[in-house]
Amino acid sequence: MVAARADCSRRKKNEEADAVTNDTDPATVERAPRLTKAAVGLVRPVIEGVRPQVDCGRYPAKASIGEPVIVEADIFCDGHDALSCEVRHRPPGARGWTSVAMAPLGNDRWRATFPTKDLGRHRFQVVAVIDRFASWRRDTLVKANDGQDVAVDLALGAQLLTGAAVRAKGVGRRALTAYAEALAVAPRGLETTVAHDPLLSEGAPLRTVADLLQAPELEHLLWRTRDLGAAAVGPELAVFVDPERARFSAWYELFPRSAGMRGGRHGTLADVEARLDEVAAMGFDVVYLPPIHPIGTTNRKGADGGGAARRADPGSPWAIGAREGGHTAIHPELGTEKDLASLLRAARRRGIEVALDVAFQCSPDHPWVREHPSWFRHLPDGSIRYAENPPKRYEDIYPIDFETPQWRELWDELAAVVGYWIDQGITVFRVDNPHTKSLAFWEWLLAEVKAKRPEVIFLAEAFTRPRLMYRLAKIGFTQSYTYFTWREAKWELEQYMDELTTTEVADYFRPNFWPNTPDILPAHLQHGGRAAFLSRLVLAATLSSNYGIYGPAFELQEHVARQEGSEEYAHSEKYAIRNWDRERPDSLAGFIGRVNRIRHENPALHHNRTLRFHHCANDALLCYSKTWLVDPGSYLGEGVTHAPSDPNAVLVVVNLDPTYEQSGILELDLAALGLDPGRPFDVHDLLTDAHYQWQGPSNFVRLDPSGVPAHIFRVHHPEKAGAKR
Amino acid sequence: MVAARADCSRRKKNEEADAVTNDTDPATVERAPRLTKAAVGLVRPVIEGVRPQVDCGRYPAKASIGEPVIVEADIFCDGHDALSCEVRHRPPGARGWTSVAMAPLGNDRWRATFPTKDLGRHRFQVVAVIDRFASWRRDTLVKANDGQDVAVDLALGAQLLTGAAVRAKGVGRRALTAYAEALAVAPRGLETTVAHDPLLSEGAPLRTVADLLQAPELEHLLWRTRDLGAAAVGPELAVFVDPERARFSAWYELFPRSAGMRGGRHGTLADVEARLDEVAAMGFDVVYLPPIHPIGTTNRKGADGGGAARRADPGSPWAIGAREGGHTAIHPELGTEKDLASLLRAARRRGIEVALDVAFQCSPDHPWVREHPSWFRHLPDGSIRYAENPPKRYEDIYPIDFETPQWRELWDELAAVVGYWIDQGITVFRVDNPHTKSLAFWEWLLAEVKAKRPEVIFLAEAFTRPRLMYRLAKIGFTQSYTYFTWREAKWELEQYMDELTTTEVADYFRPNFWPNTPDILPAHLQHGGRAAFLSRLVLAATLSSNYGIYGPAFELQEHVARQEGSEEYAHSEKYAIRNWDRERPDSLAGFIGRVNRIRHENPALHHNRTLRFHHCANDALLCYSKTWLVDPGSYLGEGVTHAPSDPNAVLVVVNLDPTYEQSGILELDLAALGLDPGRPFDVHDLLTDAHYQWQGPSNFVRLDPSGVPAHIFRVHHPEKAGAKR
Repeated sequence: MVAARADCSRRKKNEEADAVTNDTDPATVERAPRLTKAAVGLVRPVIEGVRPQVDCGRYPAKASIGEPVIVEADIFCDGHDALSCEVRHRPPGARGWTSVAMAPLGNDRWRATFPTKDLGRHRFQVVAVIDRFASWRRDTLVKANDGQDVAVDLALGAQLLTGAAVRAKGVGRRALTAYAEALAVAPRGLETTVAHDPLLSEGAPLRTVADLLQAPELEHLLWRTRDLGAAAVGPELAVFVDPERARFSAWYELFPRSAGMRGGRHGTLADVEARLDEVAAMGFDVVYLPPIHPIGTTNRKGADGGGAARRADPGSPWAIGAREGGHTAIHPELGTEKDLASLLRAARRRGIEVALDVAFQCSPDHPWVREHPSWFRHLPDGSIRYAENPPKRYEDIYPIDFETPQWRELWDELAAVVGYWIDQGITVFRVDNPHTKSLAFWEWLLAEVKAKRPEVIFLAEAFTRPRLMYRLAKIGFTQSYTYFTWREAKWELEQYMDELTTTEVADYFRPNFWPNTPDILPAHLQHGGRAAFLSRLVLAATLSSNYGIYGPAFELQEHVARQEGSEEYAHSEKYAIRNWDRERPDSLAGFIGRVNRIRHENPALHHNRTLRFHHCANDALLCYSKTWLVDPGSYLGEGVTHAPSDPNAVLVVVNLDPTYEQSGILELDLAALGLDPGRPFDVHDLLTDAHYQWQGPSNFVRLDPSGVPAHIFRVHHPEKAGAKR
Repeated sequence: MVAARADCSRRKKNEEADAVTNDTDPATVERAPRLTKAAVGLVRPVIEGVRPQVDCGRYPAKASIGEPVIVEADIFCDGHDALSCEVRHRPPGARGWTSVAMAPLGNDRWRATFPTKDLGRHRFQVVAVIDRFASWRRDTLVKANDGQDVAVDLALGAQLLTGAAVRAKGVGRRALTAYAEALAVAPRGLETTVAHDPLLSEGAPLRTVADLLQAPELEHLLWRTRDLGAAAVGPELAVFVDPERARFSAWYELFPRSAGMRGGRHGTLADVEARLDEVAAMGFDVVYLPPIHPIGTTNRKGADGGGAARRADPGSPWAIGAREGGHTAIHPELGTEKDLASLLRAARRRGIEVALDVAFQCSPDHPWVREHPSWFRHLPDGSIRYAENPPKRYEDIYPIDFETPQWRELWDELAAVVGYWIDQGITVFRVDNPHTKSLAFWEWLLAEVKAKRPEVIFLAEAFTRPRLMYRLAKIGFTQSYTYFTWREAKWELEQYMDELTTTEVADYFRPNFWPNTPDILPAHLQHGGRAAFLSRLVLAATLSSNYGIYGPAFELQEHVARQEGSEEYAHSEKYAIRNWDRERPDSLAGFIGRVNRIRHENPALHHNRTLRFHHCANDALLCYSKTWLVDPGSYLGEGVTHAPSDPNAVLVVVNLDPTYEQSGILELDLAALGLDPGRPFDVHDLLTDAHYQWQGPSNFVRLDPSGVPAHIFRVHHPEKAGAKR
């Protein structure tokens, strides 16, 4: 019932024998040796600063299918001994750990990656031990090079190899024993030729002891027989693996009641189904519907949310609940559960998921108001308190009182609502204003749902202060609305993206960028014309791997606010049925479709981890890139099945000025793009299909807002063109 | 036996009733109300990012007597309710918590300070609860201003005050009840005049309800009766309070064997005692002696550490142990325990502590080699392994093998060594190369010692990689050697100081800056002449509140290296008795005394927390300031007994170029100096006694290395001159 909290056992060293999971590459993925109980006084390595780690391990970090987990830690010990460091990881339900060796990055920082093939909570742990053989080998080679006598050292090395042989089995034991004997009797020190090289096939050239000590085969044998007896063990941490759509998605929000094919008629779920081909042609993969439940009549808001409703006013879909039912009912004018099921089937055939809204609040006519009066706050005069944000009042909505003494009963009922829609086939939810409801409740609810259905995605619609936005992500929301909607200037966008992609925020907060929503028509869209719509779309779709638009308002460039200085749409669809002319020739549907196709075809745009900004002296030109596979060691680990076979680098330039042509010289960070400064490279504008050949970091661009105010370039050296996707 | 590890109970909410400690200021320090067990589902505030917090609370942060602990946290809740946040703290041995209210800093960050009057481990914890009255008052005032009817709201407010009255006692209960009644019957809303103001004395003017709601007296009553029933409780953290000398100290290192008054004779502890007046005149408060134990003869190093010792060579004091004894013996030529006791008494009369060296390694002649052969590593040929750092060899020293199976016995014996010298009256230790010994051992040892003797100071002499240096500080070393010795350029010094004073490193790592040591004669002192010695002294003494020099080499400007490119002193005192001519007219003793007097007289220089760099376009001029009491809210808390009665701001400018005169315009951050940009201020050079009057941020300076290459200014507005210390 109560939110699952990371318990103390997380910090306990796991000292049991571990089973082995099968894995593909025996060179790096190995049986994790038994951790034996060692006296704490003999444990010498120190493990600090393990990442990803959210709030000291209180919450899991986020990952997704196809996105390897990158684990880093500071690892060191007293003195000068070499270390052997590894990450043990364990997918949900697995019986044992799998180990992968970590590589040193310098300055005592180590890194390893492990693949994510299963949904749900994976555990991992850093383990480090003194590498006695590597320490011995380094010192012995230095002494031999200095001309010192190493006879005693060779005997010491033989002891170490004998110890490894004892821990080995079969061929390994025989080979290590043979090595130990070779060292013990090497009459001419390191230059002695090994008579019977146990690792070489017949007829191979003989090797010296010095060669053998550095042979990869020996390295591998020693790794397999490493002694974890006095290992340091880091905290057991978790990473939650979501489906790929959690990382890479394009959302399209529409009001079903405006989806009618004929003007003015109340649209239905069947109308939405009929529109799916249009949405698919634009390349979206999530269709998000505002609440589809019955709407209250008491204190119903009229047009533009002002005054009382007239008879024809449909009310706000967020004033949930009426005689026909509450959060598990469908508005009768929209259709039935059968219609919803049909919509879901049709959407899935097109690779689209339908997202529903979770808005835990009630109209005064909601059945819960009658059945569970204690779930609402009562005033001294006996009335129920409606929603207010003084001096504003929302008389058509009763907030739920999460401080009710019946909170356990309430939580169960709300969880049942989500469970109900999951049973209807919904796997994506947009949660309305989660920051005004109990955080403890969300933490519990999301854990409950994901324990059984790890594929379910929750988007947090919170536009509030940074700490609270981030907290929602920590406690389990899959994706989050952001401040992107109001970030306009180059420095604002660069600073915000740096916060989202290069700090620890990137470990748990997945941005979903929206240029507009039914609540927000930002000033730049009101006044910037077509160029503003195009540039904001490109920014949202390429800065963030998750983004969405509220349509058809967006593609039809709806830009009139309720009044000057307001961000509310005039004739807001929140309170009215809108009759959209989707066939208008100025519709941006074609452009949007092209941008979404570019996104799909370029894996660089499927994540945010490699985002880099490039310098341009003109502050109206924003230039950035994303790559895939530029640095395989730092990003992709073993077992990533859908990685492209060639690097993918996308360079975006956006003119932030919707009025004037802007030009400037880009100063590209070629290394970040995987480009060789000495060779020319192809620059292919995927929006216009224009091709250019550039060389070196400095290149000229000019963008005219009367045409396409952005470049989305695919860049690569010409000889790799054949491998281009 | 085993290092005390932070256990899981640290994270457990303390739900017991707490006793009260007496404190001085009832307005801010209060009885901590009982934390009752609340259902986790009803706890709404969230506490994150509590500072100071070292490695998720694994280690205590550091504080010192007279330095209030500044606690900050991110605290917020769902929705828009106001919060009441506090820090509970508890000195060692106290039975209960004391609470101090936190103030909001903006963006959900909160802060409080608490004083440190006792040595040892203090615990603290952040507690936060919804402030229902403040939320209600804010909303009600907004609604009333908007002209809305607040009758029901006043009834709600009366309910809240009645609830507070139930929790109150005596006068508070009567006053709160009277308020509640006033609200409940206020016929004209907020403008109603209160008939019987329970908080006002007879004859005071009547107040309106609106006034009363904001009265400090009511605020105070509500704080005293706050309801912590559904409080959020942060992790229980610790801060270790060291003596003031841990934060503010000036060290003088000297070799007792060179302290003889007549040239060439082996100096004694009595000779050191005879030199104390000189050291006191220079203003030092710690005299640090290299090891005073018997020195081995086997493989004794000769002059400059090269080759075998000749008969007269005294050997390295770090090759500890001979027939006469080991780590608890005194070298016979230095004197006896009685001589040491006499030295300590004489030093203390002058406000000086004597620091001994803890160097856990042995000469081959050390009694432990015979008595405990298993404490040393044996090679396959039966010999004991001497110290080496290939290809370098140190045959006069056997390292202790901390991986011995007899490690428990070893740890006890080493702890007994420290205990022995503590029993002799030593409270300051300089620990030689702690990074080459077991970290687990140090963590255990320091915890063992400090549990009984929290006043003992340990300086870690580790010159190694950053993570290892910082780890030593985390596990309990009081002060640490640093990279200052090699930081020369302006950008290096600025960057390093920012790391040490503005990051979380400042919470646990106390730098101790040394311009030279017997091991390190840096290149700038070899080639920079007198100006380099003066500027390095000023930098060390004013950038860091803890610093030290190796003398008389420093004040006599000893600058000849063993060879070009080496940092070893020629005729190193590590291997020889030196005959210093301390009366030389070019001795810097007078200048050093002046700098140390300036340090003592200016509390701004007693800590590093307020260090700020000021811009100067000339990269040869480094400009920085420290202040005390510039921002009382952010630094000083209640109960600081020795705070000066006026602000103290010190501005330092150093010419980093030892050869040429340098001049430039300083661009001062006047706010950081507590100065008003519109008023002139006095600038008093405490080194030369020159006075200037400046105004505004831009001011010209010129520093000639042939004179004094630094300014140490005391700055203040003239009218405060009377309050000047």
